[in-house]
Amino acid sequence: MSIRLGELAQRLGGELIGEPEVAVTAVAPLDAAGPADVSFFTNPRLLAQAAQSGAAALIVSPANSARIGAGFRGARILTDNPYAYFARVAQLFAAQAAVLPPTGIHPSAVVAPSAIIAASASIGPHVTIEAGTIVGDGCVVGSGVFIGRNARIGAGTRLYPNVAFHDGCIIGARCIVHSGAVIGADGFGFAQDEGTWIKIPQTGVVRIGNDVEIGANTTVDRGALADTVIEDDVKLDNQIQIAHNCHIGAHTAMAGCVGVAGSAVIGKHCTFGGAAMVLGHLTIADNVHVSSGSMVTRSIREPGQYTGIFPLAKNADWEKSAAIVRNLGTMREKIRDLEKTVKMLVEKNNEQS
Amino acid sequence: MSIRLGELAQRLGGELIGEPEVAVTAVAPLDAAGPADVSFFTNPRLLAQAAQSGAAALIVSPANSARIGAGFRGARILTDNPYAYFARVAQLFAAQAAVLPPTGIHPSAVVAPSAIIAASASIGPHVTIEAGTIVGDGCVVGSGVFIGRNARIGAGTRLYPNVAFHDGCIIGARCIVHSGAVIGADGFGFAQDEGTWIKIPQTGVVRIGNDVEIGANTTVDRGALADTVIEDDVKLDNQIQIAHNCHIGAHTAMAGCVGVAGSAVIGKHCTFGGAAMVLGHLTIADNVHVSSGSMVTRSIREPGQYTGIFPLAKNADWEKSAAIVRNLGTMREKIRDLEKTVKMLVEKNNEQS
Amino acid sequence: MSIRLGELAQRLGGELIGEPEVAVTAVAPLDAAGPADVSFFTNPRLLAQAAQSGAAALIVSPANSARIGAGFRGARILTDNPYAYFARVAQLFAAQAAVLPPTGIHPSAVVAPSAIIAASASIGPHVTIEAGTIVGDGCVVGSGVFIGRNARIGAGTRLYPNVAFHDGCIIGARCIVHSGAVIGADGFGFAQDEGTWIKIPQTGVVRIGNDVEIGANTTVDRGALADTVIEDDVKLDNQIQIAHNCHIGAHTAMAGCVGVAGSAVIGKHCTFGGAAMVLGHLTIADNVHVSSGSMVTRSIREPGQYTGIFPLAKNADWEKSAAIVRNLGTMREKIRDLEKTVKMLVEKNNEQS
Repeated sequence: MSIRLGELAQRLGGELIGEPEVAVTAVAPLDAAGPADVSFFTNPRLLAQAAQSGAAALIVSPANSARIGAGFRGARILTDNPYAYFARVAQLFAAQAAVLPPTGIHPSAVVAPSAIIAASASIGPHVTIEAGTIVGDGCVVGSGVFIGRNARIGAGTRLYPNVAFHDGCIIGARCIVHSGAVIGADGFGFAQDEGTWIKIPQTGVVRIGNDVEIGANTTVDRGALADTVIEDDVKLDNQIQIAHNCHIGAHTAMAGCVGVAGSAVIGKHCTFGGAAMVLGHLTIADNVHVSSGSMVTRSIREPGQYTGIFPLAKNADWEKSAAIVRNLGTMREKIRDLEKTVKMLVEKNNEQS
Repeated sequence: MSIRLGELAQRLGGELIGEPEVAVTAVAPLDAAGPADVSFFTNPRLLAQAAQSGAAALIVSPANSARIGAGFRGARILTDNPYAYFARVAQLFAAQAAVLPPTGIHPSAVVAPSAIIAASASIGPHVTIEAGTIVGDGCVVGSGVFIGRNARIGAGTRLYPNVAFHDGCIIGARCIVHSGAVIGADGFGFAQDEGTWIKIPQTGVVRIGNDVEIGANTTVDRGALADTVIEDDVKLDNQIQIAHNCHIGAHTAMAGCVGVAGSAVIGKHCTFGGAAMVLGHLTIADNVHVSSGSMVTRSIREPGQYTGIFPLAKNADWEKSAAIVRNLGTMREKIRDLEKTVKMLVEKNNEQS
Repeated sequence: MSIRLGELAQRLGGELIGEPEVAVTAVAPLDAAGPADVSFFTNPRLLAQAAQSGAAALIVSPANSARIGAGFRGARILTDNPYAYFARVAQLFAAQAAVLPPTGIHPSAVVAPSAIIAASASIGPHVTIEAGTIVGDGCVVGSGVFIGRNARIGAGTRLYPNVAFHDGCIIGARCIVHSGAVIGADGFGFAQDEGTWIKIPQTGVVRIGNDVEIGANTTVDRGALADTVIEDDVKLDNQIQIAHNCHIGAHTAMAGCVGVAGSAVIGKHCTFGGAAMVLGHLTIADNVHVSSGSMVTRSIREPGQYTGIFPLAKNADWEKSAAIVRNLGTMREKIRDLEKTVKMLVEKNNEQS
């Protein structure tokens, strides 16, 4: 459970300044790191902490290494992206510490005879896998997971306990779906007929790319006629709702509680703050960033940061502001009246002088 | 898996103009439909697409059929509500394609001896059904579903995998509850006693009518003393929270992520956009429509569309607006001061002239 | 299933005015209570109802008892906190009516040999408990629950069906976790590397105190390096998202659909209305109350009520207000221009007179 610094630099790159034989066993924050820990420095506010850190090694950019100076006594690993390097070091340690579930199918699992389960996959207790489904190499299917008919689970993908993954849906390689997520439930589609709702069968599926992560209790609905699509490397946090026929571009990330209404098309490399919402049938360009709690009500064609939330205030102050907001039309009228009167006064004044 | 157009019109009504022997096998959008597909036309913007569609048959209103003219060569089914007709056609095809689970109780299910399960019902793997519960004719209870004591599941109702349906709750006929939904968990009720919370037992249940659909991971809490009630034909999308003692009128529909606080009484034929919220103990009339992201903070007595969201803007513009919103009181003061001064100026001016 | 009033007062305190031998069997609202019911009175608007109530006994403060006067004929229990007293009476009846699941491990449960399950605990059907986990005295683990490795479930805690409780997480005594809740899924942490996301392993856990209640489908993520902490007597409603490394102070309560972003530190005795949101890395003092639907975007150091929502209006009125909000900068300019011109007019006016 330990790695020598020399081996770390060999595997992950970067320039090691220090003793390659020093062994490290964990990652830790600057102020908690001890002589067997690796830490990293990117936040300028923590410069003093970095200089005084007891870490065995510090991952740092060349420029910041100079800034820290001789204060820090441990080894340094110089790299242009210390945070990404730190993530990879943490992954190494996590992989060493991981307790992998046994391969094979737990005797309590109910797997249809026509399902094809890779020998290297792990199927947990109380799992149900229906007919025609394929589970790839090295997949881990947690306890209580349901996988419907004719689904495809790509190699190395992990479905945590109590996920529901419905008929015909497809997920790529190296994905992670957290507990309670529901992939491929019916989209919300009804026609109205004299006040009664007529259900529109949702016959599309959900197609998910590679390296996608889907948070706990997040829901991604199947398409109505066409499919709901989530491209490679999309990261969805918990409690997110993706409606039918949405298309989410590669590398886009959404924080918790985001909702995306039906048929929205979202670009690549976008980010959505927590509880941001997107109305249906909109198009959002690549590299758009929507702030937390903001409602997107029209298509966004231009990259950038977008926001729309009512600023928080003490309740009494808010009540005052809210009352005025309700009457902004009156305020605008008053200003117009003032403008007219003042213009008249100015004219009179000019006449008089 | 095909239906002749003549049979379609016989079953679903409408006036068929064209060859009744033509067989169709699926529904499709106008631009994708081929010689075995049925499509529909309602959106005036798609008039050109309709005229050029390769569909075997087009569902269309008489007025729109005239608008399309001779351009479209296939058959036509004339009806006053083409979208509802289309939904019913799609349901026919979906019913033909559906793979129904086997009737009977899966050997891995744990069903209390006193539960009464209709012979035509299908109880999936890893299901738990507790004492005194009744599951009606043709019900489908998916893998991993939990049904508590003394519950009632009406005929033809489907509970998808991993639903939890708690003690004493009642659901009518032909309902659909999607994966991960939780019906009848405790409402959120506490008394405060010197800074500590004292739980108020939630002894009511949830009573759900017929033809109700409840989305994935949606939660409907049981009542505190009285019951939580959801009337017939209510449609709830995913990730919705309905708190204890709410009453939701028939035919009301709510999009994803809506939240309704305790004891709210909502009328019939209402609609709620995604992430709309309703405070507790409010009354909302029939035919009220609340826009996405809007917070209902007072009772609504009058039908109509209601909205309350901060408009989205580029972040820099929003920051400017938000700063002013925080100081609207100051702005109002300035306007009042201006009004006074201008009034004084006008009076002086009148005296002078 | 009945309690004499004398016994009630003996167990729960308060001053009984009336016949101690009268037996009561349930709690009920003032207007529905009959001769075997206990009711309570706190809301001044219900004074007439209280006076006319048919309840066997009324829980009431001494001051309000005087206000009701001789109108009410039943017994009275005088106490300073009638609502808390009522809650405790309701708990007594609920405990009498409760059907406790059998102790022991259901044969369909899959429990690792190294897990330690108290003999008085009840482990339901289709449960999975992994290696090294300890389940305390009197715990109830519902059907389909998953508990990961090395977890700790305190005495008397109940996990309702289909909860997922992940590796290493800890929950104290007398807690309640409702169906579909997910405790200890990975926090949402990624480093960016040339447009690709690199996962940061989430190696902390979730530590939950005593007497905590967690609602249906609520998610509490495990920490990244340090832990996510929920202190004693915290009450979380349904559909809540608590991100990694949050710290929630004792006795704080959050209504449904609240979201708290990563590393937020929230004080004790706070309350959050439904769908309130808290950005990451903020600090919120004790006794802060955030209104429903409000977004907390900065730390709050001072107790009090805080709000930030756009007021609801008829859609046409909202459109007008929203258009002005978008152009508040222009409005401010106009006021500044008016102020300048009016100042100039006043000066001229003074010169002339």
